[in-house]
Amino acid sequence: MQVKGFLAAAVPAGVRYAGRLDLGLIFSQTPAVTAGAFTTNKVKAAPVQLDMERLRSGLAQAILVNSGNANACTGKEGMDQALATGALAARELGIDPSLVQVASTGVIGQPLRLEPFAQAMPGLVASLSPEGFEQLAQAIMTTDLVPKIASATVDIGGVEVSILGIAKGSGMIMPDMATMLCFVVTDAQIVFPVLNRLVKAGVGHTFNRITVDGDTSTNDTVLVMANGAAGNPWIDEDNLQAAALFGDALKGVFKELALKIVADGEGATKLVTVRIVGARDEDEALNAAQTIANSALVKTAFFGEDANWGRIIAALGRSECTFDPQRVGISFDDISLVENGVALGADREAAATAVLKQPRFTVTVHLGEGLAEAEVYTCDFSYDYVKINADYRS
Amino acid sequence: MQVKGFLAAAVPAGVRYAGRLDLGLIFSQTPAVTAGAFTTNKVKAAPVQLDMERLRSGLAQAILVNSGNANACTGKEGMDQALATGALAARELGIDPSLVQVASTGVIGQPLRLEPFAQAMPGLVASLSPEGFEQLAQAIMTTDLVPKIASATVDIGGVEVSILGIAKGSGMIMPDMATMLCFVVTDAQIVFPVLNRLVKAGVGHTFNRITVDGDTSTNDTVLVMANGAAGNPWIDEDNLQAAALFGDALKGVFKELALKIVADGEGATKLVTVRIVGARDEDEALNAAQTIANSALVKTAFFGEDANWGRIIAALGRSECTFDPQRVGISFDDISLVENGVALGADREAAATAVLKQPRFTVTVHLGEGLAEAEVYTCDFSYDYVKINADYRS
Repeated sequence: MQVKGFLAAAVPAGVRYAGRLDLGLIFSQTPAVTAGAFTTNKVKAAPVQLDMERLRSGLAQAILVNSGNANACTGKEGMDQALATGALAARELGIDPSLVQVASTGVIGQPLRLEPFAQAMPGLVASLSPEGFEQLAQAIMTTDLVPKIASATVDIGGVEVSILGIAKGSGMIMPDMATMLCFVVTDAQIVFPVLNRLVKAGVGHTFNRITVDGDTSTNDTVLVMANGAAGNPWIDEDNLQAAALFGDALKGVFKELALKIVADGEGATKLVTVRIVGARDEDEALNAAQTIANSALVKTAFFGEDANWGRIIAALGRSECTFDPQRVGISFDDISLVENGVALGADREAAATAVLKQPRFTVTVHLGEGLAEAEVYTCDFSYDYVKINADYRS
Repeated sequence: MQVKGFLAAAVPAGVRYAGRLDLGLIFSQTPAVTAGAFTTNKVKAAPVQLDMERLRSGLAQAILVNSGNANACTGKEGMDQALATGALAARELGIDPSLVQVASTGVIGQPLRLEPFAQAMPGLVASLSPEGFEQLAQAIMTTDLVPKIASATVDIGGVEVSILGIAKGSGMIMPDMATMLCFVVTDAQIVFPVLNRLVKAGVGHTFNRITVDGDTSTNDTVLVMANGAAGNPWIDEDNLQAAALFGDALKGVFKELALKIVADGEGATKLVTVRIVGARDEDEALNAAQTIANSALVKTAFFGEDANWGRIIAALGRSECTFDPQRVGISFDDISLVENGVALGADREAAATAVLKQPRFTVTVHLGEGLAEAEVYTCDFSYDYVKINADYRS
């Protein structure tokens, strides 16, 4: 898929390893309205700090991204290097450096060498093309097994608007290796305050609802550039219906990418939706869902295809959610396994075990306390998760 | 070791499996001042509910404990069974049922059959002996690889007082299998309010500072019985120096048992102390230490013997602790690896890696924000953790 007015490219620059795609660029032919969402970790990598500062303008024209080195925990020098790599791209593109966003993923705590960027930049810019996004999706992979791309179109006032997103991520954080990055380009005409709100809301219900290991990265970045090339009627505060339509499409792209990240979670063999229904309020529902979705004991039981509802109820019990243990119900897909806090017997457990043998399923916990609900997406916890994370730097 | 006036025994009763020690009893020849600490999980197993209610009297004379079935999430019947097993022991011992504490560990959500208890009780009581605690420590093991016993003596007013404790636990919770249980007997003469305060304070700094996987059980129980047989001057509110001495000895027994639990953590190959110094207050220090000690990424790096300080700083960054990333220092034992947020180079990293090859080491994080500190004890996260917890019920 192509999006009007956007080009992309990726080249092997040798940031850490020779001979693999590790430097990418997204370029909009005109400055684009740009909004972002960034890690909430108190430790923010230099590129994150720089992007947050530059996005105050609500405008960007290029995103320069590298894998192999996260440029995190690198002190004042790290910021100098982030500025310098952005300046290299700006000069080669002939745009103002303030319009360049930068993103990095890879080893933490090691100085980022400028030389690979300087040598690769002319070739990178020369190879920009409307079809460059697939290569870009490959260039940002670290422990990812598959590149992650999603797209959508939406009709805004009779004009077709395109949205194209790429992402990487395989654990919520592996500061040596991985990070969640997502870049979305759209030719929609949209004002910054509306785009910004839609990005924050969309991220809150998609990327912030996935977990691989409960850790959050120093480099997590979502950037959405809208260059207006579609020429649709402006999406702004006076056109909230269009904002809702566009927001739904954007959220759909986010969600598709988010689920691809979980499905490709380090060592994952299953994609599991944990759903809490009947909670007192959404915060409690979300806290309960996240506690269950992050429990090592629940996730190893998923890997073992064991309908171990005791671990689910025990994780629920240490969450901050209000409930009465004697009213809890638990289902695996449409198989009800527990009602009013007690098991329904061996037949139901056998049926639930069959559900767990599938690559995707939903665990629903019924609280009977109210009407609020929340969903979180997680994966199982396998030997390979341990292997990937124990062996990585060796 | 023996403690005056206390007897113990264990027999194979066939609660779940035939031919293994799974039913144990502790008996004090006179009613003993008894204090406890229990799981904070909202889901509490029937025996926990019963013990909490009975301990309002501050007195007990026996503890009946089984492995193989946790009697948790078993509804109203579960409470009936807890009452019935306690009554069987009381009748055989010739004491009032209200003086019997009960504890269970094992599979969750399955009815506890009374028959094995009824059949085994006469033999169990007949085999009570002062030397029975070692067998008892074996009877309560589940995924534990080794029985856990610790003891101490302390001079109170010229009289030697003995403390003997046994514990089980291998994950903070495996509701199918494990739970943390700890039973301590002492011949000290001590009043209930003081014993109760010492138990709560001791647990707070020992059992509540360990983690294997961040989960808490429905059955966690600590019980301390003091029968006064030593005849020491009473430890009470008017003898706070003796209370402090006894409290230190009791805490020492708790800590030894707690560290044995972590060292025997499911799949564990290393015992790691995570220490935060220079925090603003103890709550923040503890939150930071627990966040690091529970991070799957940090724990897999320990398993991989990788001095991966980036994962430590990233976990710190998502904790609720106040700090400036540019002031953080990290050491492995006495090897300083990071100062002011940046790495000190490859030599230090090599030296830190050598520290990680040891079976026990301490990670110290220096915040430079204040004078508060906290320590948490954790283990590494290995293939075997996944194996034990994925395969257990199959």
